[in-house]
Amino acid sequence: MLPEPDKVQRVGILGAGVIGGGWALHFLRNGMEVTIFDPSPKSKTQFDAMKTAVWPTMEELGLAPGASPNRCRFADSLEEMASAVQVIQENAPENLEVKQTLYAQLDAAAPPDVPILSSTSGFAMTDIQKKCRHPGRTVVGHPFNPPYLIPFIEVVGGEATDPAVVDWAVAFYRSTGKRPVRMSREVPGFIANRLQEALWREALHMVANDEATVEEIDAAIVDGPGLRWAVMGPCLTFHLAGGEGGMAHMLDHFGPSLQSPWTRLKAPELDQRLRDRMVVGCEGLAGGMTPAELARERDRCVIEFMKVRDACRTGPGPKGGR
Amino acid sequence: MLPEPDKVQRVGILGAGVIGGGWALHFLRNGMEVTIFDPSPKSKTQFDAMKTAVWPTMEELGLAPGASPNRCRFADSLEEMASAVQVIQENAPENLEVKQTLYAQLDAAAPPDVPILSSTSGFAMTDIQKKCRHPGRTVVGHPFNPPYLIPFIEVVGGEATDPAVVDWAVAFYRSTGKRPVRMSREVPGFIANRLQEALWREALHMVANDEATVEEIDAAIVDGPGLRWAVMGPCLTFHLAGGEGGMAHMLDHFGPSLQSPWTRLKAPELDQRLRDRMVVGCEGLAGGMTPAELARERDRCVIEFMKVRDACRTGPGPKGGR
Repeated sequence: MLPEPDKVQRVGILGAGVIGGGWALHFLRNGMEVTIFDPSPKSKTQFDAMKTAVWPTMEELGLAPGASPNRCRFADSLEEMASAVQVIQENAPENLEVKQTLYAQLDAAAPPDVPILSSTSGFAMTDIQKKCRHPGRTVVGHPFNPPYLIPFIEVVGGEATDPAVVDWAVAFYRSTGKRPVRMSREVPGFIANRLQEALWREALHMVANDEATVEEIDAAIVDGPGLRWAVMGPCLTFHLAGGEGGMAHMLDHFGPSLQSPWTRLKAPELDQRLRDRMVVGCEGLAGGMTPAELARERDRCVIEFMKVRDACRTGPGPKGGR
Repeated sequence: MLPEPDKVQRVGILGAGVIGGGWALHFLRNGMEVTIFDPSPKSKTQFDAMKTAVWPTMEELGLAPGASPNRCRFADSLEEMASAVQVIQENAPENLEVKQTLYAQLDAAAPPDVPILSSTSGFAMTDIQKKCRHPGRTVVGHPFNPPYLIPFIEVVGGEATDPAVVDWAVAFYRSTGKRPVRMSREVPGFIANRLQEALWREALHMVANDEATVEEIDAAIVDGPGLRWAVMGPCLTFHLAGGEGGMAHMLDHFGPSLQSPWTRLKAPELDQRLRDRMVVGCEGLAGGMTPAELARERDRCVIEFMKVRDACRTGPGPKGGR
């Protein structure tokens, strides 16, 4: 029997690097008790340094009742960790064989009603869970760096995953303040990394080809589309670019420029089906707000973002778009 | 003789749609006198509505001495506008032949020391300026929507452009509070649109292939990488993901995953030259700040961004990642 997703008290962390350590801090902030296993002898020192640096940020975000940086211990073995907790967040190196072996060990050590959630940024749970006797409780829960701060989590099961455990993972993450999205199918790289990676590869091509410098690329995003993307995603952003006609006008009017040589990524065919999906999707996102109302909301946010940036930036030289 | 870039008083606007109207408001906020020509009979009514809606935002951003929404008039002809101003910002439809014809007209009507700046999002000035007798003063100055708010401007000349006028355009935009980047060469789509377009095409592919919905894509960006990109661009973001080792560790360690099927865009070869450019570029962006210091700055900004979003959002339903 799965624990109540919003009543979890004891969380296990496998691997306490940048990602695993970030998860540990997130769960500590939520008032949970965290048991970590990491085979590296340096891991405890590194995690303690991270905890000292980041705990003020956790206080700023708001502590749950009972939250304490001290409700955290390092176990001596994977088995000791796995047998002491109600849910495990795995953050092992991105190596499929390593993950398969670790999942076999976790699966053997943790009672079968303990969900095992993976921070993998690219592997499918269908592959990771292959050596488990109880694969039904294994789910991908992919965070973004830093996991103690960025809300988005991609949740998706493998072929042998029990859909009820995927639902459980969504409810669990949501109860800790995250904003999980339950993907309907496994896609290599999931959603956000595919989008981010397309942009990143284009950036690398531009630097390799002397088309832009690292500094120009960061300035372009931070002072350009990046300012908008913290308020509205790419779809709603282009919905607004379409003026009163929204996404429909955008696609019908600028559709041909999709074929422009503006990136090395080939565009999909903009057939009626794709066009209609984008239009209907944007209408849903707009939630009845007019383009003018959405634009006002965006503008208010962006102005405040720029003020925040000016106030927060302490460093000496120009950074991305300073 | 070019006007002093920071002493311009009279600006001409060709085309007063979403982009041209946005530029007009930006220059009005800067205390300038704006003369608009737009052949559409509806343009004045539409611009007046935009001005009414956006002027409070201009006040919030801060008005220059003498700034007034009333220092703006519509000319009866392109020639009347072009002969009355010190600089022209062109915002005609994205059609090369149309632009070439308009540039011939602007070039004939405006004194040769009046810079003509183009908002084109994709055409090269080398092509646009082909029918000009004085092409030396024609420069691309590409903004992002809305031009009255987003700071990033891409500035690049064509083959026949006088480099001194490119410098002038950078100085002019900067004097109005923009953050221009002077590109060293013409690249189709410039910088930010290439990056944004790569992400957008991947998004369209995902929707077309049932891999993600419009709502999931926007949530993925707004609550994920988008929150970071308003503080730090993709290069500095990945520099931080590399932990203490920064971009060097990131590339040396995760380089192979560049070849993962995580987008439809093929990765460039990560040779020593590209690796070193990325590493040196990120060191420059970091400006001597350690990863821990950069991370603290990012975290402070992101926390405040999330507060701003919660406070600014007024609409009813879930939007990108609400």
